[in-house]
Amino acid sequence: MANSAEDQEHPVEAFGWAATQPKGLLSPFNFSRRHEVVGEVTEVGKEVKKVKVGDKVGVGCMIGACHACDDCNNDLENYCPGMILTYSSTYHDGTVTHGGYSDHMVAHHRYVVLFPDTMPLHAGAPLLCAGITVYSPLKYYGLAEPGKHVGVVGLGGLGHLAVKFARALGAKVTVISTSHSKQDEALHRLGAHSFLLSSDQHQMQEATGTMDGIIDTVSAVHSLSPLIKLLKSHGKLVMVGAPEKPFELLVFPDLAMGRKMVGGSAIGGMKETQEMIDFAAKHNVTADVEVIPMDYVNTAMERLARADVRYRFVIDIGNSLAATKL
Amino acid sequence: MANSAEDQEHPVEAFGWAATQPKGLLSPFNFSRRHEVVGEVTEVGKEVKKVKVGDKVGVGCMIGACHACDDCNNDLENYCPGMILTYSSTYHDGTVTHGGYSDHMVAHHRYVVLFPDTMPLHAGAPLLCAGITVYSPLKYYGLAEPGKHVGVVGLGGLGHLAVKFARALGAKVTVISTSHSKQDEALHRLGAHSFLLSSDQHQMQEATGTMDGIIDTVSAVHSLSPLIKLLKSHGKLVMVGAPEKPFELLVFPDLAMGRKMVGGSAIGGMKETQEMIDFAAKHNVTADVEVIPMDYVNTAMERLARADVRYRFVIDIGNSLAATKL
Repeated sequence: MANSAEDQEHPVEAFGWAATQPKGLLSPFNFSRRHEVVGEVTEVGKEVKKVKVGDKVGVGCMIGACHACDDCNNDLENYCPGMILTYSSTYHDGTVTHGGYSDHMVAHHRYVVLFPDTMPLHAGAPLLCAGITVYSPLKYYGLAEPGKHVGVVGLGGLGHLAVKFARALGAKVTVISTSHSKQDEALHRLGAHSFLLSSDQHQMQEATGTMDGIIDTVSAVHSLSPLIKLLKSHGKLVMVGAPEKPFELLVFPDLAMGRKMVGGSAIGGMKETQEMIDFAAKHNVTADVEVIPMDYVNTAMERLARADVRYRFVIDIGNSLAATKL
Repeated sequence: MANSAEDQEHPVEAFGWAATQPKGLLSPFNFSRRHEVVGEVTEVGKEVKKVKVGDKVGVGCMIGACHACDDCNNDLENYCPGMILTYSSTYHDGTVTHGGYSDHMVAHHRYVVLFPDTMPLHAGAPLLCAGITVYSPLKYYGLAEPGKHVGVVGLGGLGHLAVKFARALGAKVTVISTSHSKQDEALHRLGAHSFLLSSDQHQMQEATGTMDGIIDTVSAVHSLSPLIKLLKSHGKLVMVGAPEKPFELLVFPDLAMGRKMVGGSAIGGMKETQEMIDFAAKHNVTADVEVIPMDYVNTAMERLARADVRYRFVIDIGNSLAATKL
């Protein structure tokens, strides 16, 4: 990974794998899809103080923003209307952003996260998207405190990190799932304090009004009322999935009685992303990952489609590309 | 109105008008429906310090709660699961609460609001329900500040008070309405700073991302997406109507992009209700009302059904009952 100074970004020849059609297979070229990138700094711009050659760094799913609006001025580049994604967006210079499935990447230092020595690259990479996606709302919605009771709906890439972060932040954590098979995983491997089977009316009734907030990671349309009922007065249901279809929202009585709210959240600003990585390193929070070579990526896509991964694939780009270079 | 000391409440013979069937006409007896009551103190319990005989006071739509839960301990009796409505609820002693369409009323001092001398009874009465219903969320959701831009959807009993309170609290106020006929009323009689015709795509587009919060008073199901688009990042859409049907909520992109939220709110606690009345008296905020005699009430109900009132009916119970006493 290469990094250059502000206003002095220069192209670096890079080689990677890509799909040239939306549903095409990946083959050696270049590629863009929601992902995050880690590597080692090979070059820095003259004015860059934040990182030096040899540092372990990461780049998440955004690499630019306007740097002039209220959100940018408040370190919330992720909500800037001019935010530029790391993949398939148009960069300031008019070029298409190509993600990080390649041997080199150039990024503005504002979008580069310094990895502490104790944070492994492979298990830290998914924190740059999935991690900050759950960490940021835990903080913003006031759930990141000892004594708070946080529900986590869905136990996948986002959910397993929500459990780990909420726990590390001092909250009591309950996993809410439609699947009884997740109970052992939730309680014994991830360290949740309790498990709630959402299809069990008795369990749900018992848990009524007990939670300060819920991080809902499920993108498929589901009923929000049973979740809102789990909240205490003034509780918050935070949706962090990216569902394509609208949900039904019953304002009365669900939101009105107890002054509850349903909120959204999307990744986090760069300052908070660095804070999250530092916190994760200090508290041993990492993603559960399966490291794969680049030429396994199409199989991995098939497995992703059937949710057959615990919980994130990480592609070893460096070693893979060395082997397949044209 | 009579008021008694805690744990020393005693029945007072009262006479009033009532409907004995859900859709029946009102006739002299006793009655229960969502309303608020004002009058003069005729008697106080021994330990009551808050009010004295002769004071002008009001009682809103709740007259009891558990006084033991977190919400009660935080002066949020309105969110107590044991909250007792002023009408058609069961009181601590097992009797049915009968509202205030009568010559006397007994209430626990905690639920009695002292009216400042400058607050007229008739124009102050609706503040005890409609007023606090909009005042409380303006405060809770951080919109009650100079420099904030607040949208108000719907210009009825709740909406016209939302405009007045938001303005008095220092915010810039924009009325959002489906009806062009409300523009003059909003701008010139109620003092809104601007008016937005929700059916005008150009106006709505121009106003994208300009509001810190919106108080939505409309109970009929309507589309939330165009309203959410009016919010700045981190903006709040607060629903204060009591719609019977669910709304469609598009989590992505509506809530996610900009970390927006949809929240509820229901009246307010007694401490805040007193604060609201004091604020209203100081800033000349009153409800626009049409005072009617008791025997006009059935006609008033018909007019309410077609929204033919600007903006609240207030029944002159005292004078009416003196004339119709059996």
